[in-house]
Amino acid sequence: METGYINGAYLPREDIKISPDDRGFLFADGIYEVVRWYEGEFFDMEGHLQRLKRSLRELEISWPEADSFPAICRKLISVNGLEKSPVLVYIQVTRGAAMRTHTFPSPAVPPTVYAFARSFVPESSGKENGITVMLRDDFRWSRCDIKSVALLANTISFEEATRKGFSECIYTRNGKITEGSHSNIFFVKNNILLTHPESEYVLSGITRKNALAIARNLGIAVKEEAMDEKDLARTDEAFITNTSAEVTPVVAVGTIKIGDGKPGPVTCRIRESFTALTARLKH
Amino acid sequence: METGYINGAYLPREDIKISPDDRGFLFADGIYEVVRWYEGEFFDMEGHLQRLKRSLRELEISWPEADSFPAICRKLISVNGLEKSPVLVYIQVTRGAAMRTHTFPSPAVPPTVYAFARSFVPESSGKENGITVMLRDDFRWSRCDIKSVALLANTISFEEATRKGFSECIYTRNGKITEGSHSNIFFVKNNILLTHPESEYVLSGITRKNALAIARNLGIAVKEEAMDEKDLARTDEAFITNTSAEVTPVVAVGTIKIGDGKPGPVTCRIRESFTALTARLKH
Repeated sequence: METGYINGAYLPREDIKISPDDRGFLFADGIYEVVRWYEGEFFDMEGHLQRLKRSLRELEISWPEADSFPAICRKLISVNGLEKSPVLVYIQVTRGAAMRTHTFPSPAVPPTVYAFARSFVPESSGKENGITVMLRDDFRWSRCDIKSVALLANTISFEEATRKGFSECIYTRNGKITEGSHSNIFFVKNNILLTHPESEYVLSGITRKNALAIARNLGIAVKEEAMDEKDLARTDEAFITNTSAEVTPVVAVGTIKIGDGKPGPVTCRIRESFTALTARLKH
Repeated sequence: METGYINGAYLPREDIKISPDDRGFLFADGIYEVVRWYEGEFFDMEGHLQRLKRSLRELEISWPEADSFPAICRKLISVNGLEKSPVLVYIQVTRGAAMRTHTFPSPAVPPTVYAFARSFVPESSGKENGITVMLRDDFRWSRCDIKSVALLANTISFEEATRKGFSECIYTRNGKITEGSHSNIFFVKNNILLTHPESEYVLSGITRKNALAIARNLGIAVKEEAMDEKDLARTDEAFITNTSAEVTPVVAVGTIKIGDGKPGPVTCRIRESFTALTARLKH
């Protein structure tokens, strides 16, 4: 039976219940992280831990035991016997349960901390051959840098993309490409790697950060600069990054073919380096 | 003991639990309504019911028993013995519990329907003497017409307003005043009543709609037109509307005094008519 984590306890998933007065349920007043276990080690756990703490700080949610996050993840791997599988561990921290009112509970209530581990089969065909993505106006809020559970817009967009046969929905805001519904996006144009700078319009992705480091290491010119939507047709390469897709080439944005419609050479170099990095985590 | 409602059952509030895999908790993938009981009757239940159904349609959440919403509200009043009290009934409908993935569950799962009734003491001093509100950039998403539980931005704003000593936070988008964190806002300028038109930037408030009908009935000139932020200092009157505040005068926006800093005559006429309308609901 699958074991999850709730507020300090490891319980069968089916036995975990929360109050409907949890502010995560009533107000989307919470944050989350997803970390990946590479059959031996987590990828950049420290990066995820620091981002989790930043999200909590930004929302003034107090979880004094935030440093136990890596240990919770490891324990979910071991109690579920998932050491030898590719696994995603999900953790969510909300402001806790309290009588419904827009103001934060005063005095504060304990946060709700929920986590679970799930083995999965990494997607391979898209990573190898590239994916197509759709484009739409960024109708999300303007604090996308906070990894909050206020994800309704993201789910609507990804559902729309899926129905239309695309693998992701990419957003544009004022003509600039920001990011995907649950990924960051990179472009290569004139041999320069471009991605939206850190700002309130994009999540500071852990895979994004690592892909940038890899590119710089490989001597690829990098500019953290937003791509103009109108320049898409003159782009040579594109790829998205996130914890599960890692580095996945994008071969078309809507009806616009990217480069020659195949994963580009810069993308492939970064993808291979990323794979090499994660291969070292396997025991 | 207080009785609430969950998925067809009336249970003690403390016994109501939901799954942490509810999409309301994981993704803010749900909608809500708040209706007011005036010691004998609900105010504009039909308006709330129609808006609930619209929100469900917009998100493609299926709740086949949506028409039972008024009966659920009435039963929560009676089982809790609240007939003679001012009461707010809260209802939330989410897409239900399913394994976490951005796409909508397929096949669909039953929605989660949670409701509770709470007696309250209507605020009177602000309604009589007026309130002050703060102004900030509208950083919410662009589907404010859907009454969704993705309210993180709203709670942040209202918390900020409260800490700064204001009674509400009003948003501006591209220099136009949209609405409050949980209210609509009206202005009177040159004897014309102004409020943001129905659009994706504002909620189509039930009290807003009734206040507009009252104003037209009283022969007040009405324009559903957004107020420019830069014209605030030249505004004669202002008021907010929502289910609990009803029609509440606004006497200052940030440091800008509205009119002579007292509730204006047009505002007071609309407020009195609204009060007369609700007085007829009392048994």
